[in-house]
Amino acid sequence: MEKHEATTIEIEESSKERKGKAPLLAAAAAVDHARAGNRRGIAIFDLILRVSAATAALAATIIMGTTEQTLPFFTQFFQFQASYDDLPSFTFFVIAMSIATGYLVLSVPFSIVCIARPLLTAPKLLLIICDTLTVTLTTSAAASSAAIVYLAHNGNSDANWLAICQQFDSFCSRTSGAVVASFVAVALIIFMVVLSALGLRKH
Amino acid sequence: MEKHEATTIEIEESSKERKGKAPLLAAAAAVDHARAGNRRGIAIFDLILRVSAATAALAATIIMGTTEQTLPFFTQFFQFQASYDDLPSFTFFVIAMSIATGYLVLSVPFSIVCIARPLLTAPKLLLIICDTLTVTLTTSAAASSAAIVYLAHNGNSDANWLAICQQFDSFCSRTSGAVVASFVAVALIIFMVVLSALGLRKH
Repeated sequence: MEKHEATTIEIEESSKERKGKAPLLAAAAAVDHARAGNRRGIAIFDLILRVSAATAALAATIIMGTTEQTLPFFTQFFQFQASYDDLPSFTFFVIAMSIATGYLVLSVPFSIVCIARPLLTAPKLLLIICDTLTVTLTTSAAASSAAIVYLAHNGNSDANWLAICQQFDSFCSRTSGAVVASFVAVALIIFMVVLSALGLRKH
Repeated sequence: MEKHEATTIEIEESSKERKGKAPLLAAAAAVDHARAGNRRGIAIFDLILRVSAATAALAATIIMGTTEQTLPFFTQFFQFQASYDDLPSFTFFVIAMSIATGYLVLSVPFSIVCIARPLLTAPKLLLIICDTLTVTLTTSAAASSAAIVYLAHNGNSDANWLAICQQFDSFCSRTSGAVVASFVAVALIIFMVVLSALGLRKH
């Protein structure tokens, strides 16, 4: 009689335990599911931004890299010609923006991994660190070229540097376009970094 | 008799539960403690970097802001004088670097909060977003001034811009120093952002 009683109670106990644990596990799974969904949304938005930034960077590289203007008049000795590689800042711009384009294209698979496995932290951490370095590279290229474009447009009377945009109008408008495209790329990459930081935090 | 048996078993059950849970709770507390210590270390390193970056940015601002050179000879009409506000890029440099210095100094209390409460996420998230924006501001100032300093040193024969550093040697060396200091600040802030990203991840 004593033994039987004990057995009954044990069975009741374990069934109670099962009842108590089941909703807990279900709740944990639901929280995990919601967190995964949240992070997946951020990762999809990150992918869209990444592709847009790559497009903007590619456009900036192409516009600057193909800029060349030959003036229709020439002297006895040489013909007036302006190309992006006459100015070191523009050469740096083309190199830096092509590196940034390459990085952004190569990072797309990592961004897709973040969509497929939204709770993994390692690829996100890799992306946020590389993105920060790309922000710096892109910003420095954009800013140094902007300084030179400004000088080409306005000149500087104190340093006795003349504005060259009166002659090379097409050259100036193309380089200005490239600088604008690069600033668009910078804004998109900054937004990407901020979004990655939001996706990395623990909920 | 029946009731007494049940009571004994219940008491045994609950004491067993307590024994089972106690090590678990202790382990959780130990993990939390280790995580807090880890994050506190990162936060202290962040504070050191922040103060160093603020110092570098302040140095860059002061060096550039006090740069002025008057040449010892003058013509009938005017005296040759170079100051940082003759060149728009240098003016932008002074404004941007003073904003960055102000932000870095004002963000020190938030960094201290991160040391005191290492498991809080909100101040870290705020810092990483503002730091990213400051990286961009500082980099653009440094890069545009570097482009102009390069031009002042080397000139550009294609655009017919002469090097002005033969005359304004002290002006050129001071502005170069300011640009170097600003790049040091940029490197420190990038390191800060990467460190914040590491501190933000879930372990």
